[in-house]
Amino acid sequence: MKKVRMGMVGGGAGAFIGAIHRAAAAMDGQIELVCGALSSDPERARLSALELGIEPGRCYTSYQEMFAAEAALPEEQRMQFVSIVTPNHMHFPVAKQALEAGFHVLSDKPATLDLREALELKTLVDKSNCLYGLTHTYTGYPLIKEARHLIGSGQLGTVTKVVVEYSQGWLASKSDEGSKQAEWRLDPARAGSSCCMGDIGVHAANLAEYTCDDEISDICADLVSTVPGRQLDDDGTVLLRFKSGARGVLMASQVSVGEENRLVLRVYGDKASLEWSQMEPNTLWLKFPDKPTQMIRAGVGTLAPETLANMRTPAGHPEGYLEAFANIYRSFAEQIRAVQDSGTVEAAGDIPSIHQAVRGMAFIENVVTASQSNQKWHAFSLQPHS
Amino acid sequence: MKKVRMGMVGGGAGAFIGAIHRAAAAMDGQIELVCGALSSDPERARLSALELGIEPGRCYTSYQEMFAAEAALPEEQRMQFVSIVTPNHMHFPVAKQALEAGFHVLSDKPATLDLREALELKTLVDKSNCLYGLTHTYTGYPLIKEARHLIGSGQLGTVTKVVVEYSQGWLASKSDEGSKQAEWRLDPARAGSSCCMGDIGVHAANLAEYTCDDEISDICADLVSTVPGRQLDDDGTVLLRFKSGARGVLMASQVSVGEENRLVLRVYGDKASLEWSQMEPNTLWLKFPDKPTQMIRAGVGTLAPETLANMRTPAGHPEGYLEAFANIYRSFAEQIRAVQDSGTVEAAGDIPSIHQAVRGMAFIENVVTASQSNQKWHAFSLQPHS
Amino acid sequence: MKKVRMGMVGGGAGAFIGAIHRAAAAMDGQIELVCGALSSDPERARLSALELGIEPGRCYTSYQEMFAAEAALPEEQRMQFVSIVTPNHMHFPVAKQALEAGFHVLSDKPATLDLREALELKTLVDKSNCLYGLTHTYTGYPLIKEARHLIGSGQLGTVTKVVVEYSQGWLASKSDEGSKQAEWRLDPARAGSSCCMGDIGVHAANLAEYTCDDEISDICADLVSTVPGRQLDDDGTVLLRFKSGARGVLMASQVSVGEENRLVLRVYGDKASLEWSQMEPNTLWLKFPDKPTQMIRAGVGTLAPETLANMRTPAGHPEGYLEAFANIYRSFAEQIRAVQDSGTVEAAGDIPSIHQAVRGMAFIENVVTASQSNQKWHAFSLQPHS
Amino acid sequence: MKKVRMGMVGGGAGAFIGAIHRAAAAMDGQIELVCGALSSDPERARLSALELGIEPGRCYTSYQEMFAAEAALPEEQRMQFVSIVTPNHMHFPVAKQALEAGFHVLSDKPATLDLREALELKTLVDKSNCLYGLTHTYTGYPLIKEARHLIGSGQLGTVTKVVVEYSQGWLASKSDEGSKQAEWRLDPARAGSSCCMGDIGVHAANLAEYTCDDEISDICADLVSTVPGRQLDDDGTVLLRFKSGARGVLMASQVSVGEENRLVLRVYGDKASLEWSQMEPNTLWLKFPDKPTQMIRAGVGTLAPETLANMRTPAGHPEGYLEAFANIYRSFAEQIRAVQDSGTVEAAGDIPSIHQAVRGMAFIENVVTASQSNQKWHAFSLQPHS
Repeated sequence: MKKVRMGMVGGGAGAFIGAIHRAAAAMDGQIELVCGALSSDPERARLSALELGIEPGRCYTSYQEMFAAEAALPEEQRMQFVSIVTPNHMHFPVAKQALEAGFHVLSDKPATLDLREALELKTLVDKSNCLYGLTHTYTGYPLIKEARHLIGSGQLGTVTKVVVEYSQGWLASKSDEGSKQAEWRLDPARAGSSCCMGDIGVHAANLAEYTCDDEISDICADLVSTVPGRQLDDDGTVLLRFKSGARGVLMASQVSVGEENRLVLRVYGDKASLEWSQMEPNTLWLKFPDKPTQMIRAGVGTLAPETLANMRTPAGHPEGYLEAFANIYRSFAEQIRAVQDSGTVEAAGDIPSIHQAVRGMAFIENVVTASQSNQKWHAFSLQPHS
Repeated sequence: MKKVRMGMVGGGAGAFIGAIHRAAAAMDGQIELVCGALSSDPERARLSALELGIEPGRCYTSYQEMFAAEAALPEEQRMQFVSIVTPNHMHFPVAKQALEAGFHVLSDKPATLDLREALELKTLVDKSNCLYGLTHTYTGYPLIKEARHLIGSGQLGTVTKVVVEYSQGWLASKSDEGSKQAEWRLDPARAGSSCCMGDIGVHAANLAEYTCDDEISDICADLVSTVPGRQLDDDGTVLLRFKSGARGVLMASQVSVGEENRLVLRVYGDKASLEWSQMEPNTLWLKFPDKPTQMIRAGVGTLAPETLANMRTPAGHPEGYLEAFANIYRSFAEQIRAVQDSGTVEAAGDIPSIHQAVRGMAFIENVVTASQSNQKWHAFSLQPHS
Repeated sequence: MKKVRMGMVGGGAGAFIGAIHRAAAAMDGQIELVCGALSSDPERARLSALELGIEPGRCYTSYQEMFAAEAALPEEQRMQFVSIVTPNHMHFPVAKQALEAGFHVLSDKPATLDLREALELKTLVDKSNCLYGLTHTYTGYPLIKEARHLIGSGQLGTVTKVVVEYSQGWLASKSDEGSKQAEWRLDPARAGSSCCMGDIGVHAANLAEYTCDDEISDICADLVSTVPGRQLDDDGTVLLRFKSGARGVLMASQVSVGEENRLVLRVYGDKASLEWSQMEPNTLWLKFPDKPTQMIRAGVGTLAPETLANMRTPAGHPEGYLEAFANIYRSFAEQIRAVQDSGTVEAAGDIPSIHQAVRGMAFIENVVTASQSNQKWHAFSLQPHS
Repeated sequence: MKKVRMGMVGGGAGAFIGAIHRAAAAMDGQIELVCGALSSDPERARLSALELGIEPGRCYTSYQEMFAAEAALPEEQRMQFVSIVTPNHMHFPVAKQALEAGFHVLSDKPATLDLREALELKTLVDKSNCLYGLTHTYTGYPLIKEARHLIGSGQLGTVTKVVVEYSQGWLASKSDEGSKQAEWRLDPARAGSSCCMGDIGVHAANLAEYTCDDEISDICADLVSTVPGRQLDDDGTVLLRFKSGARGVLMASQVSVGEENRLVLRVYGDKASLEWSQMEPNTLWLKFPDKPTQMIRAGVGTLAPETLANMRTPAGHPEGYLEAFANIYRSFAEQIRAVQDSGTVEAAGDIPSIHQAVRGMAFIENVVTASQSNQKWHAFSLQPHS
């Protein structure tokens, strides 16, 4: 089996998320990193690529150069998809140009800077012959597949309530603002209209919609800037109504001192309920009104085929964040092969696509707008707010 | 040391909460049950009292009879306080008459049916020479004392966020409505204007205010009736602002399938944060931005004097709900002794009093009113809403 | 219902375990403390009894005086059983004299100083008309009843392995030896031939035998004195064989720094297995080869009648050590009533009796002897070793 | 940076452990799989290699062929090390020949079939210019590095007791014996003299020795075959003495129904103690006699450099078994580079080497021999027992 050929934009030496993406792409031996435009600094770009073992001729100094040069290579050699791991404001322009050059796109989250761009991107994707994927990592965990399966197959009955929380503490004080990670996230020009909701609240919303196979229809939002002087939110709560009639509560925070990545999802149905925590991802709790709670474990007993397909190790050998990430990469690679084989573009894989990209940007804009109003409830809209 | 003499109204054979109160009162050997009007059914009242070893002459058939007869006894014999464990709508009339007859009152929660009654009760308490206590049990846990101490002594820095949740699942379906417990709680005539918030949401609010030594100033509320046909709420979320400037989220539910008594409190400060769960009450988590989380355990290391005063067993021998309840009884008995010794009524003890009783009823009314409005934020008011 | 009348020997002001016993006895309102010989210091004995509300005429200065005086009272008034909470070396003489005076005995553990005394005590019990109970507290936990039920009803299949551990850390250093608690436990004259095994190892052995309804048949033992200069063991491991053919491992330690009361029992069968931890006693884990582990919780779903009979609170309201202790007292009081009603002595109740008392002392002697030998396996014997 | 070139022996299509090794090798992008002799079936070997993207000319049908052919390639192209993932009985012959052909060896555990072979292998390694590494995976977890650092830097004081357990349940019944995994493990010809101790007990022993930087000096062993008809042990307990004077308990089981991979290590010192569980590997508990237990988490606060060097993700993003495995591969690749750079072979890396290989095989033989004797204690010997 030939490996799927990947190019990377962003992720030069020292960049955190690029290394995560590369590990995820490499893990299953199905993807090969063949070229890169790893830094906006041309020299650093070239050196980073060499360091990663990319052959010198395919170490590019800009994404424009990369797309042009790769497109000119024989089909058997040229990169098949681009992984975009730049700062947020570059996601859209890189994705746009990649699609126009005929390359599949797997983009770090968020898809774009705002909803307007996301809708434009959707138009581009729809008319292209290319796949578009978004790395909402948390949907890649095997037991999230199991949770989705349990809900979808009716084992919870009618879903009545969803509680999802994503709390971190790393921006809790003024002195935390110095890091590179913090700086751009708190800057409206580079982060968009929201810090906390844009960075992690949107993961929580995506996880809830994905797991329940449902969509948010109305919101009541309360965002705050806890640390004085911040222009953007660092904490917030959103009350939810879903299309199904279920209601929900979404909490997100970057100022909850001592929390690492407390992403916890609870779904209550009228027959049973479930709870999952990202920090112990190999356990899923299934609760009943009148019998013992079950501890569903990755690898134990009967699991859904899609759960099994997203596992690599036997019971009791924990898998984690990189494996969840790798599941998205592997699924994307499989889609690319399917497109090659069939000749038609059909995003059959179980990974977030342009639809989720648009909903994510809409979530951020809706929440920011609703928070500024003293009206309690607002319909969730897909129209840009600005 | 002579035992403090207690009478009981309500709690006849088969009543659940009466037995809990009696176990709590008995545990420390400082309180003696000397008389009772245990049921509105005179014969059942008498039999229940005999069953409990109350001497026949002090088994009364009504609380009116009990107060009159006991008041006529020599001071050395007569009951000193009444424990009220009737259905909610009787709390106020019994407490009123007890105060008027000169007896201290320890009442099951909620204090009254509505805020108007609570304010009237406060007037009565203030002009009496009697103590009034309310059994918000959860404030009796030793590690809640420790949490309050840690916050009060500044170890969390400035409190920025409070998350408190009380979720149960026992009213999740139509078929759960048949029990005696369910029936009156869902009936506006007997339960007042709220089911879920009145029954357990108010515990959560009290626990947050007590632990943080702070008061709610503004709310945004969303109550729902999940099961069709219910007149009162069975689930709700309230966004909070506190007088200190902290914000909060309060969730309460009686329809969260599989939850037993998930009462969890988290308090985030700018220096540290803490987390406590009622179902594992002997552990308190203290979290920091930059060093390992500490597992504070009842009985281990240095604890505040008020924490130690509320413990009975050494480290690793778990205490629970009855002990928390007993802490309130013991503290109330100590107050009564102090009143006897000093001749002046001063509620020095660390248990919920008429102030919390009024705030609790106000919480319920404020939340119900705010939930009915599409205005987001509402000031927390101590004026009756009806 | 008239309360059962209890006298107490030991447990004067400041004594820890006496207060625990009194709380346990008081909790259910079925037992009344009517007399006491609470201290070997006559004046302290009298004052302690007064402090506890015992009437002056029944505050005795010695147990001999108490038994004589109480025996002379009318049957309706006199104490019915004695609770023995003295230091260990007094358990036997007090119990002996109580039985001879015709009083039922409920004794703190261990029953006697050595096996020879225990066998003598058994002879006395057998020929008396009195009940004898031993407060192996941990068997009083509701979910231990459930575990015993699950095993007894075959839900684990054939039991193959038992792992039981009781680890503490309070004697880990030389400087811990100063306390009153430590002093006598490390003194062969007062503690007998073992410190760690005699104090807590024997609890672990009792818990395993009780829960599995099985008996140890062979042992391989390794006791150590971790802290230099100690005459007795402070840590040890015992390999076990049971009469049923199951094998086991028993670990006990008083020098495991940071452990509170880590008493954990695991029982493996060929169909299922279970795990229970004293420090979170309201949860019992039931594990299967091929399906999710079940979290059995006190109060949730279907439980055995004997489990329910040993609970006082609804699901999610934790019960603890005092309640487990109270279960033993309540059961003993019920046995006394049954003896009164039937006129015949039959220890029908589910609490440790003289049989367990003998086995406990035998366990200690067998382990000490086996540890001193370089032969691996030793048959468990009921003959005194000295 | 050029990737280190790896060949693989064993691990053809369908083999479980081969895929694990490949994922571990691929994850960090520093190792390239360039050739393979993946199956003893020549056709399957060739097809498997093609499937993995190995170029056809380097898909070999036997390891002998592979070593010969690769040795003949230019140094710049030829494989640098071989990863051995065959069944156990082939580990030694493949490693032997690889060393003789001048290739570094990274071998799946156990190193050989018995101690005699292990000692012979050590002789070969010592006189070669090659590195030898053994994938005792569990030592690759970051918090095991931290534990080793805490112990080594004296933060536990003097280590007094080590408790290590590795329990599984997958061989609990006769019907489990049909799988390929089970079959060879229960066959003395292919598995050697022990099943449970050889397969997982040896991991536990290695983990204890590695973390404490200590060596077992004496043992008392009790192995059993729980399921009738088995020739080899499926469960066992070993009492330990270490050279430092610490004592220990090692439990291993393959018949503990419901256990997945319960590998738990506890180390008690006279100042502090620690506990770590493989199934939640990102948490390390540090316990003290007189202050709160600390929850050390991967990524939080100050950690040892060697801990940080073995992490890939930020706090709260769990890493697992594959990452631990990858740490061993990465460290081995770094050693190979260091050997290349320096020209001298020095196993500077922090991974198990031939010394651990010999000790592991000695552990198995010592335990089997000691278990057959009714003498309690046996000195741990490095002499072959047969």
